[in-house]
Amino acid sequence: MSSSPDPALPSGDDPLTVFPSPSLPSPLPQSPVLLAAYRAKAAAAELAPLPRTPKDEALLAIADALVVRTREIIEANAVDVERARAAGTSESVIDRLTLNRERVAAIAADVRHVAGLPDPVGEIVRGSTLPNGLDLRQVRVPLGVVGIIYEARPNVTVDAAALCLKSGNAVLLRGSASAYSSNLKLVEVLRDAVGGAGLPADCVQLVPGESRESVQELMRARGMVDVLIPRGGASLIRTVVEQSTVPVIETGTGNCHVYVDAQADLAMAVQILIDSKASRPSVCNAAETLLVHQDIAAEFLPPALAALAEAGVTVHGDERVQRFAETEGSKAVVVPATAEDWETEYLSYDIAAAVVDSLDAAVAHIRLWSSGHTEAIVTTSQAAAARFTRLVDAAAVAVNASTRFTDGGQFGFGAEIGISTQKLHARGPMGLPELTSTKYIVTGEGHTRG
Amino acid sequence: MSSSPDPALPSGDDPLTVFPSPSLPSPLPQSPVLLAAYRAKAAAAELAPLPRTPKDEALLAIADALVVRTREIIEANAVDVERARAAGTSESVIDRLTLNRERVAAIAADVRHVAGLPDPVGEIVRGSTLPNGLDLRQVRVPLGVVGIIYEARPNVTVDAAALCLKSGNAVLLRGSASAYSSNLKLVEVLRDAVGGAGLPADCVQLVPGESRESVQELMRARGMVDVLIPRGGASLIRTVVEQSTVPVIETGTGNCHVYVDAQADLAMAVQILIDSKASRPSVCNAAETLLVHQDIAAEFLPPALAALAEAGVTVHGDERVQRFAETEGSKAVVVPATAEDWETEYLSYDIAAAVVDSLDAAVAHIRLWSSGHTEAIVTTSQAAAARFTRLVDAAAVAVNASTRFTDGGQFGFGAEIGISTQKLHARGPMGLPELTSTKYIVTGEGHTRG
Repeated sequence: MSSSPDPALPSGDDPLTVFPSPSLPSPLPQSPVLLAAYRAKAAAAELAPLPRTPKDEALLAIADALVVRTREIIEANAVDVERARAAGTSESVIDRLTLNRERVAAIAADVRHVAGLPDPVGEIVRGSTLPNGLDLRQVRVPLGVVGIIYEARPNVTVDAAALCLKSGNAVLLRGSASAYSSNLKLVEVLRDAVGGAGLPADCVQLVPGESRESVQELMRARGMVDVLIPRGGASLIRTVVEQSTVPVIETGTGNCHVYVDAQADLAMAVQILIDSKASRPSVCNAAETLLVHQDIAAEFLPPALAALAEAGVTVHGDERVQRFAETEGSKAVVVPATAEDWETEYLSYDIAAAVVDSLDAAVAHIRLWSSGHTEAIVTTSQAAAARFTRLVDAAAVAVNASTRFTDGGQFGFGAEIGISTQKLHARGPMGLPELTSTKYIVTGEGHTRG
Repeated sequence: MSSSPDPALPSGDDPLTVFPSPSLPSPLPQSPVLLAAYRAKAAAAELAPLPRTPKDEALLAIADALVVRTREIIEANAVDVERARAAGTSESVIDRLTLNRERVAAIAADVRHVAGLPDPVGEIVRGSTLPNGLDLRQVRVPLGVVGIIYEARPNVTVDAAALCLKSGNAVLLRGSASAYSSNLKLVEVLRDAVGGAGLPADCVQLVPGESRESVQELMRARGMVDVLIPRGGASLIRTVVEQSTVPVIETGTGNCHVYVDAQADLAMAVQILIDSKASRPSVCNAAETLLVHQDIAAEFLPPALAALAEAGVTVHGDERVQRFAETEGSKAVVVPATAEDWETEYLSYDIAAAVVDSLDAAVAHIRLWSSGHTEAIVTTSQAAAARFTRLVDAAAVAVNASTRFTDGGQFGFGAEIGISTQKLHARGPMGLPELTSTKYIVTGEGHTRG
């Protein structure tokens, strides 16, 4: 990060004293994490009232800088890649970590795309004149300071910063220690570009330090940080959810089910199953469990198991599913399911499978094991589709469609900061509006309640 | 609470096994609080898909039962009142605790009013056909299980239950130990009425026990309880916010400011100040601090201080305010302000007061000390009003209107479960829609991402 004076600020002004924060004592805190949060809060206050243009200009400056400084970025990334290789990290993780010219160009293009999206800030959500003549408007405003805790992929650093900047929020980025060198350089590039465009550079900061303590401090920075969004594995998310005093938005754990109803187009059901499971098994909207109505099991399971086997998927089947794998000539790969399989988010070429007695039994199974991400039904019955969508409690319910559509891009939101699996504030793919709060503006002419 | 079998359920069905919850082991937990949460979760699953009519019928049955069983309610309440009196409780608290025939009738009327409000569940928030032909709808759904932790007033028991029932949520009520007898009886009446109307009685439950441990258990019931709403004093709210692993909506702390700008209608400013401070000092939307632009201080403060004195308000003034109190013939009651006064929510006939150099200095003061509830400006300048509303970060900003308008009833929401002072999920007065989440329903014809 640059330590030069912030060109965004009028000379002589100290951004930390213009709008001091109530949550920290003077003198400034010794903790570098809290100090970063303090600076973010001051930057957020400057950013919040800005109209669209300066924010878009800063985003375009970021995109340009990423391209111009690609070599620096790749060099910094090479340090992380080398370290990962020395530590014996798997090739798939190293691939996710690696930046090259094409990937940096793609990241820059994504930033340009965010610049082109509508600005959610200032949108009037609700407005009316009350019977007493008061004018009441509910207006979208930024959340303030957004903390993101995420794992290896360095592109998240830029994506998250761009979405936060566009929505008027300051961002505190706490990436993986394994990408620290890449993130340090990326955030330097971002800050230089933001500052150069006339906005406070402190609206983009990397949380200092690679230790676990820095995450702990971030989670306790209530009053300084308005929301924490953990992105990554289930254990990271659980830790943040349980230990944070800062409000959290839970994201991305997807134990998604595909239920094939008694009446279903079998070819469609197989296609949806294979797409849901095998088109990209490592993502949260991939299916992890297949449920089949008993009335259609004999017809559906043989072709379904064959298609899964062909796609390289191992089926963890209950007793009834196993029976269909034992028919002569079956190429199905079925191992016995244990109770643990019902709650496992494999993120791999594995799927749990069970035969259920009824639609309601499928719903009961889903209620018991779902992580509340996406649940799909394949059916030709309007009544079954209606009952399933009414009874299943999840961020998204898909009818005759793949679970893989639960995605900000697919939903037409233009961008996505994560997929919320909680019910408060945001549920499902979160775009720019989900990075905002609202403010009521009440305008009178001397109105009193008396 | 009644321990008779629930008439709402088909005989032979055990609601606890129809849709078992993943979060608790079988056999059932020993903790009565967790057991209540478990039963609430099962009841919520039955309640969520219901259309409006059965919920409204249950609400009308509740209103009828409150009237019919008024004598029982008053008798149970008398136990609490007697105990409070014996403990030397102040008359104002005893007044808030006391139920009589008129008050029970008013509570019943409020329930009838809630029945008449539109049902937020099922509302389509967003809907479109995506370019690939997928039909995407975002639909309002209940949150699930709502926990309310509140203080002495027993009418909150019925209000909260009615709002939760209307919005399809099960509710866990944890009232004050000092109102335990009243709440026990009220919840019995509510459950009998709900069950009699054919809905699961377990959608309204009093959290068992009067001890602090029951609050602790409720705060740790993550996965069983979807949201906790603390209503009451600042220390209750702080405890819940800091200790709960269940998501919390912070409510009701109001350190509200009235800022009188350099250009202002002085008579209007005095009226708004007096209404904001003195029309009902014990509520969260009452003003606690007056800020006056230095250019208008000499003109405004003498009549303002006189009006405050007449209304019985003690002013805790900074040095510049004190000077105006010392003018000859002033009836103003001004004591010196300390730093503590700026952060105090008096909830009494007291107000802190300071003279500020500029509008931006007022904004800086508010940023430093505001609880983010309601901030008011009195000004004739359009530019000043626009700058104040843009820079002040609060649930509500009032321009030439009393702070007292921040209220679900005043805003035309028909009802209010509390006033959120946080930015996530809901901000400002919370009505029925704020007791809901959403669910995306994606309908295709065999759509896959491939």
